[in-house]
Amino acid sequence: MDVPPMKTMRIRPISERDRSRISEIVSATGNFSRQEIETAMELIDEALEKGEESGYIAVVLEMLETTPTVAGYACYGPTPLTEGVFDLYWIAVHPEAQGRGIGRELVAYVEKDILARGGRMLLIETSSREDYGATIGFYERTNYQLAARIKNFYRPGDDKLIFLKEFK
Amino acid sequence: MDVPPMKTMRIRPISERDRSRISEIVSATGNFSRQEIETAMELIDEALEKGEESGYIAVVLEMLETTPTVAGYACYGPTPLTEGVFDLYWIAVHPEAQGRGIGRELVAYVEKDILARGGRMLLIETSSREDYGATIGFYERTNYQLAARIKNFYRPGDDKLIFLKEFK
Repeated sequence: MDVPPMKTMRIRPISERDRSRISEIVSATGNFSRQEIETAMELIDEALEKGEESGYIAVVLEMLETTPTVAGYACYGPTPLTEGVFDLYWIAVHPEAQGRGIGRELVAYVEKDILARGGRMLLIETSSREDYGATIGFYERTNYQLAARIKNFYRPGDDKLIFLKEFK
Repeated sequence: MDVPPMKTMRIRPISERDRSRISEIVSATGNFSRQEIETAMELIDEALEKGEESGYIAVVLEMLETTPTVAGYACYGPTPLTEGVFDLYWIAVHPEAQGRGIGRELVAYVEKDILARGGRMLLIETSSREDYGATIGFYERTNYQLAARIKNFYRPGDDKLIFLKEFK
Protein backbone atom coordinates (compact mmCIF):
# COMPACT_ATOMS: atom_id res chain seq x y z
CA MET A 1 0.00 0.00 0.00
CA ASP A 2 1.42 3.38 -0.99
CA VAL A 3 1.84 5.83 1.81
CA PRO A 4 1.47 9.47 0.69
CA PRO A 5 4.57 11.57 1.39
CA MET A 6 4.49 13.36 4.74
CA LYS A 7 3.51 16.97 4.39
CA THR A 8 6.35 18.93 5.95
CA MET A 9 5.21 22.46 5.25
CA ARG A 10 2.09 24.42 4.41
CA ILE A 11 1.37 27.92 3.20
CA ARG A 12 -1.59 29.84 4.63
CA PRO A 13 -2.84 33.44 4.89
CA ILE A 14 -1.26 35.41 7.72
CA SER A 15 -3.19 36.11 10.88
CA GLU A 16 -2.64 38.55 13.72
CA ARG A 17 -0.64 36.02 15.77
CA ASP A 18 2.04 35.79 13.00
CA ARG A 19 2.97 39.47 13.28
CA SER A 20 5.80 39.20 15.81
CA ARG A 21 7.31 36.16 14.08
CA ILE A 22 7.32 37.99 10.73
CA SER A 23 9.03 40.94 12.35
CA GLU A 24 11.59 38.51 13.79
CA ILE A 25 12.19 36.93 10.36
CA VAL A 26 12.61 40.25 8.56
CA SER A 27 15.12 41.40 11.20
CA ALA A 28 16.98 38.08 11.35
CA THR A 29 17.81 37.95 7.63
CA GLY A 30 20.22 40.85 8.20
CA ASN A 31 19.41 42.05 4.68
CA PHE A 32 17.16 44.95 5.57
CA SER A 33 17.79 48.38 7.05
CA ARG A 34 15.63 49.64 9.91
CA GLN A 35 13.65 51.72 7.44
CA GLU A 36 13.11 48.70 5.20
CA ILE A 37 11.96 46.60 8.17
CA GLU A 38 9.49 49.34 9.11
CA THR A 39 8.15 49.41 5.55
CA ALA A 40 7.83 45.62 5.46
CA MET A 41 5.82 45.71 8.70
CA GLU A 42 3.63 48.57 7.47
CA LEU A 43 2.55 46.37 4.57
CA ILE A 44 1.82 43.49 6.97
CA ASP A 45 -0.21 45.79 9.22
CA GLU A 46 -2.20 47.08 6.23
CA ALA A 47 -2.89 43.50 5.13
CA LEU A 48 -3.94 42.47 8.66
CA GLU A 49 -6.11 45.52 9.18
CA LYS A 50 -7.89 45.86 5.84
CA GLY A 51 -7.41 42.46 4.19
CA GLU A 52 -7.11 42.41 0.42
CA GLU A 53 -8.76 45.84 0.21
CA SER A 54 -5.35 47.14 1.29
CA GLY A 55 -3.83 45.95 -2.00
CA TYR A 56 -1.56 43.59 -0.06
CA ILE A 57 -1.89 39.83 0.25
CA ALA A 58 0.38 38.17 2.80
CA VAL A 59 0.99 34.46 3.36
CA VAL A 60 3.26 32.54 5.69
CA LEU A 61 5.01 29.22 5.22
CA GLU A 62 4.77 27.04 8.29
CA MET A 63 7.09 24.07 8.93
CA LEU A 64 4.93 21.25 10.27
CA GLU A 65 7.18 20.10 13.09
CA THR A 66 6.13 19.15 16.63
CA THR A 67 5.24 22.78 17.10
CA PRO A 68 4.42 24.35 13.71
CA THR A 69 6.86 27.19 13.09
CA VAL A 70 6.55 30.01 10.58
CA ALA A 71 9.79 29.96 8.57
CA GLY A 72 9.08 32.55 5.90
CA TYR A 73 6.50 34.80 4.33
CA ALA A 74 5.60 36.61 1.13
CA CYS A 75 3.66 39.83 0.58
CA TYR A 76 2.29 40.61 -2.86
CA GLY A 77 -0.61 42.34 -4.58
CA PRO A 78 -2.00 43.80 -7.78
CA THR A 79 0.12 46.63 -9.19
CA PRO A 80 -1.99 49.83 -9.23
CA LEU A 81 -3.07 51.13 -12.65
CA THR A 82 -2.12 47.92 -14.44
CA GLU A 83 -4.28 45.16 -15.87
CA GLY A 84 -3.17 41.79 -14.55
CA VAL A 85 0.24 42.75 -13.18
CA PHE A 86 1.25 41.87 -9.64
CA ASP A 87 4.16 42.93 -7.48
CA LEU A 88 6.01 40.65 -5.08
CA TYR A 89 6.61 43.37 -2.49
CA TRP A 90 8.42 41.34 0.10
CA ILE A 91 9.66 37.83 0.64
CA ALA A 92 11.85 36.60 3.49
CA VAL A 93 12.94 33.28 4.95
CA HIS A 94 14.43 32.91 8.44
CA PRO A 95 18.21 32.30 8.14
CA GLU A 96 17.88 29.07 10.15
CA ALA A 97 15.46 27.72 7.55
CA GLN A 98 17.30 28.86 4.42
CA GLY A 99 18.60 26.32 1.90
CA ARG A 100 15.51 24.11 2.22
CA GLY A 101 13.59 25.38 -0.79
CA ILE A 102 11.26 27.58 1.24
CA GLY A 103 11.73 30.68 -0.91
CA ARG A 104 11.03 28.60 -4.00
CA GLU A 105 7.86 27.19 -2.42
CA LEU A 106 6.66 30.67 -1.55
CA VAL A 107 7.31 32.04 -5.05
CA ALA A 108 5.58 29.00 -6.61
CA TYR A 109 2.55 29.60 -4.35
CA VAL A 110 2.43 33.30 -5.22
CA GLU A 111 2.66 32.56 -8.96
CA LYS A 112 -0.14 30.01 -8.75
CA ASP A 113 -2.34 32.37 -6.77
CA ILE A 114 -1.71 35.21 -9.21
CA LEU A 115 -2.64 32.98 -12.16
CA ALA A 116 -5.85 32.02 -10.35
CA ARG A 117 -6.60 35.75 -9.99
CA GLY A 118 -6.16 36.29 -13.73
CA GLY A 119 -2.67 37.77 -13.41
CA ARG A 120 -0.34 37.76 -16.37
CA MET A 121 2.90 39.13 -14.95
CA LEU A 122 4.80 39.19 -11.66
CA LEU A 123 7.32 41.94 -10.92
CA ILE A 124 10.04 41.78 -8.29
CA GLU A 125 12.12 44.83 -7.45
CA THR A 126 15.36 44.31 -5.59
CA SER A 127 18.67 45.92 -4.82
CA SER A 128 21.98 45.31 -6.57
CA ARG A 129 23.80 45.35 -3.22
CA GLU A 130 26.19 42.50 -2.72
CA ASP A 131 24.33 41.11 0.26
CA TYR A 132 21.45 40.49 -2.12
CA GLY A 133 23.63 38.34 -4.41
CA ALA A 134 21.91 35.13 -3.29
CA THR A 135 18.53 36.74 -3.89
CA ILE A 136 19.45 37.69 -7.45
CA GLY A 137 20.72 34.18 -8.22
CA PHE A 138 17.49 32.83 -6.80
CA TYR A 139 15.31 34.90 -9.15
CA GLU A 140 17.43 33.92 -12.12
CA ARG A 141 17.10 30.22 -11.27
CA THR A 142 13.34 30.55 -10.95
CA ASN A 143 13.22 32.01 -14.48
CA TYR A 144 12.74 35.67 -13.76
CA GLN A 145 14.22 37.95 -16.36
CA LEU A 146 16.06 41.12 -15.45
CA ALA A 147 13.89 43.69 -17.22
CA ALA A 148 15.44 46.92 -15.99
CA ARG A 149 18.15 48.43 -13.85
CA ILE A 150 17.82 51.94 -12.39
CA LYS A 151 21.35 52.95 -11.53
CA ASN A 152 21.97 54.59 -8.14
CA PHE A 153 18.31 54.23 -7.18
CA TYR A 154 18.45 53.31 -3.50
CA ARG A 155 21.64 55.30 -2.97
CA PRO A 156 24.72 56.04 -5.06
CA GLY A 157 26.19 52.69 -6.10
CA ASP A 158 23.05 50.75 -5.14
CA ASP A 159 20.87 50.10 -8.18
CA LYS A 160 17.27 48.95 -8.37
CA LEU A 161 16.82 45.74 -10.38
CA ILE A 162 13.40 44.90 -11.77
CA PHE A 163 12.83 41.20 -12.43
CA LEU A 164 9.70 39.90 -14.09
CA LYS A 165 8.01 36.77 -15.31
CA GLU A 166 5.17 36.76 -17.83
CA PHE A 167 2.65 33.96 -17.54
CA LYS A 168 0.81 34.31 -20.85
CA MET B 1 13.71 103.52 -16.25
CA ASP B 2 13.55 99.77 -16.63
CA VAL B 3 10.20 98.21 -15.98
CA PRO B 4 10.45 94.64 -14.65
CA PRO B 5 8.70 92.11 -16.91
CA MET B 6 5.08 91.50 -15.97
CA LYS B 7 4.67 88.33 -14.00
CA THR B 8 2.13 86.26 -15.92
CA MET B 9 2.12 83.11 -13.85
CA ARG B 10 3.04 81.87 -10.40
CA ILE B 11 3.44 78.49 -8.79
CA ARG B 12 2.15 77.93 -5.25
CA PRO B 13 1.23 75.03 -2.95
CA ILE B 14 -2.25 73.66 -3.50
CA SER B 15 -5.05 74.48 -1.12
CA GLU B 16 -8.47 72.95 -0.58
CA ARG B 17 -10.15 75.37 -3.02
CA ASP B 18 -8.00 74.05 -5.92
CA ARG B 19 -9.37 70.54 -5.64
CA SER B 20 -12.25 70.79 -8.11
CA ARG B 21 -10.14 72.66 -10.67
CA ILE B 22 -7.43 69.98 -10.50
CA SER B 23 -10.06 67.31 -11.05
CA GLU B 24 -11.30 69.32 -14.05
CA ILE B 25 -7.77 69.58 -15.49
CA VAL B 26 -6.99 65.88 -15.07
CA SER B 27 -10.26 64.96 -16.79
CA ALA B 28 -9.93 67.58 -19.54
CA THR B 29 -6.57 66.37 -20.78
CA GLY B 30 -8.28 63.25 -22.13
CA ASN B 31 -5.11 61.28 -21.39
CA PHE B 32 -6.25 59.50 -18.28
CA SER B 33 -8.65 56.63 -17.67
CA ARG B 34 -11.26 56.89 -14.91
CA GLN B 35 -9.06 54.75 -12.69
CA GLU B 36 -6.06 56.99 -13.35
CA ILE B 37 -8.12 60.10 -12.57
CA GLU B 38 -9.22 58.52 -9.29
CA THR B 39 -5.61 57.74 -8.41
CA ALA B 40 -4.49 61.26 -9.28
CA MET B 41 -7.18 62.68 -6.98
CA GLU B 42 -6.34 60.25 -4.17
CA LEU B 43 -2.82 61.67 -4.15
CA ILE B 44 -4.21 65.22 -4.06
CA ASP B 45 -6.52 64.31 -1.18
CA GLU B 46 -3.63 62.75 0.74
CA ALA B 47 -1.56 65.89 0.18
CA LEU B 48 -4.42 68.16 1.27
CA GLU B 49 -5.26 66.09 4.33
CA LYS B 50 -1.84 65.23 5.72
CA GLY B 51 0.48 67.74 4.05
CA GLU B 52 4.01 66.57 3.32
CA GLU B 53 3.66 63.78 5.90
CA SER B 54 1.64 62.04 3.19
CA GLY B 55 4.76 61.74 1.02
CA TYR B 56 3.08 63.91 -1.61
CA ILE B 57 3.81 67.52 -2.42
CA ALA B 58 1.38 69.23 -4.78
CA VAL B 59 1.69 72.63 -6.42
CA VAL B 60 -0.49 74.51 -8.89
CA LEU B 61 0.46 76.95 -11.61
CA GLU B 62 -1.83 79.94 -11.69
CA MET B 63 -2.14 82.25 -14.72
CA LEU B 64 -2.26 85.81 -13.40
CA GLU B 65 -5.10 87.12 -15.58
CA THR B 66 -7.99 89.33 -14.47
CA THR B 67 -9.20 86.38 -12.49
CA PRO B 68 -6.22 84.15 -11.59
CA THR B 69 -6.83 80.70 -13.09
CA VAL B 70 -5.11 77.44 -12.22
CA ALA B 71 -3.82 76.05 -15.52
CA GLY B 72 -1.82 73.05 -14.36
CA TYR B 73 -0.40 71.19 -11.42
CA ALA B 74 2.33 68.81 -10.38
CA CYS B 75 2.43 66.20 -7.62
CA TYR B 76 5.76 64.78 -6.49
CA GLY B 77 7.50 63.44 -3.43
CA PRO B 78 10.43 61.49 -2.02
CA THR B 79 10.63 57.91 -3.32
CA PRO B 80 10.26 55.52 -0.36
CA LEU B 81 13.38 53.55 0.66
CA THR B 82 15.72 55.73 -1.40
CA GLU B 83 18.21 58.39 -0.36
CA GLY B 84 17.59 61.59 -2.28
CA VAL B 85 15.39 60.24 -5.06
CA PHE B 86 12.06 61.88 -5.89
CA ASP B 87 9.17 60.79 -8.07
CA LEU B 88 7.10 63.12 -10.22
CA TYR B 89 3.86 61.24 -9.68
CA TRP B 90 1.56 63.41 -11.72
CA ILE B 91 1.69 66.48 -13.91
CA ALA B 92 -1.11 67.90 -16.03
CA VAL B 93 -1.87 71.10 -17.91
CA HIS B 94 -5.36 72.10 -19.02
CA PRO B 95 -5.66 71.60 -22.82
CA GLU B 96 -6.66 75.25 -23.27
CA ALA B 97 -3.39 76.34 -21.68
CA GLN B 98 -1.08 73.88 -23.41
CA GLY B 99 1.71 75.10 -25.71
CA ARG B 100 2.58 78.01 -23.43
CA GLY B 101 5.47 76.44 -21.56
CA ILE B 102 3.44 75.65 -18.46
CA GLY B 103 4.60 72.04 -18.20
CA ARG B 104 8.18 73.19 -18.51
CA GLU B 105 7.66 75.81 -15.77
CA LEU B 106 6.18 73.18 -13.48
CA VAL B 107 9.03 70.70 -14.07
CA ALA B 108 11.62 73.46 -13.53
CA TYR B 109 9.91 74.38 -10.24
CA VAL B 110 9.82 70.76 -9.09
CA GLU B 111 13.51 70.25 -9.96
CA LYS B 112 14.50 73.38 -8.06
CA ASP B 113 12.46 72.37 -5.04
CA ILE B 114 13.93 68.86 -5.05
CA LEU B 115 17.46 70.26 -5.19
CA ALA B 116 16.62 72.52 -2.23
CA ARG B 117 15.47 69.42 -0.35
CA GLY B 118 18.79 67.66 -1.01
CA GLY B 119 17.45 65.50 -3.83
CA ARG B 120 19.82 64.00 -6.37
CA MET B 121 17.48 62.35 -8.86
CA LEU B 122 13.98 62.80 -10.28
CA LEU B 123 12.08 59.85 -11.75
CA ILE B 124 9.09 60.09 -14.06
CA GLU B 125 7.11 57.00 -15.01
CA THR B 126 4.86 57.22 -18.03
CA SER B 127 3.06 55.10 -20.59
CA SER B 128 4.23 54.28 -24.11
CA ARG B 129 0.68 54.78 -25.43
CA GLU B 130 0.47 56.93 -28.51
CA ASP B 131 -1.63 59.60 -26.82
CA TYR B 132 1.34 60.17 -24.56
CA GLY B 133 3.62 60.89 -27.53
CA ALA B 134 3.71 64.61 -26.74
CA THR B 135 4.55 63.84 -23.13
CA ILE B 136 7.48 61.65 -24.10
CA GLY B 137 8.88 64.30 -26.46
CA PHE B 138 8.51 66.81 -23.65
CA TYR B 139 10.64 64.76 -21.22
CA GLU B 140 13.27 64.22 -23.87
CA ARG B 141 13.48 67.97 -24.58
CA THR B 142 13.82 68.73 -20.88
CA ASN B 143 16.83 66.36 -20.73
CA TYR B 144 15.30 63.35 -19.08
CA GLN B 145 16.90 60.10 -20.09
CA LEU B 146 14.87 56.97 -20.78
CA ALA B 147 16.32 54.63 -18.13
CA ALA B 148 14.02 51.64 -18.50
CA ARG B 149 11.06 50.21 -20.35
CA ILE B 150 8.86 47.52 -18.81
CA LYS B 151 7.09 45.93 -21.75
CA ASN B 152 3.33 45.31 -21.47
CA PHE B 153 3.24 46.87 -18.00
CA TYR B 154 -0.04 48.79 -17.99
CA ARG B 155 -1.68 46.31 -20.36
CA PRO B 156 -0.48 44.19 -23.27
CA GLY B 157 1.07 46.57 -25.79
CA ASP B 158 1.26 49.45 -23.30
CA ASP B 159 4.73 49.69 -21.78
CA LYS B 160 5.93 51.63 -18.75
CA LEU B 161 8.73 54.07 -19.51
CA ILE B 162 10.93 55.31 -16.70
CA PHE B 163 12.62 58.64 -17.34
CA LEU B 164 15.12 60.15 -14.97
CA LYS B 165 17.40 63.09 -14.45
CA GLU B 166 20.36 63.07 -12.07
CA PHE B 167 21.31 66.38 -10.49
CA LYS B 168 24.68 65.53 -9.00
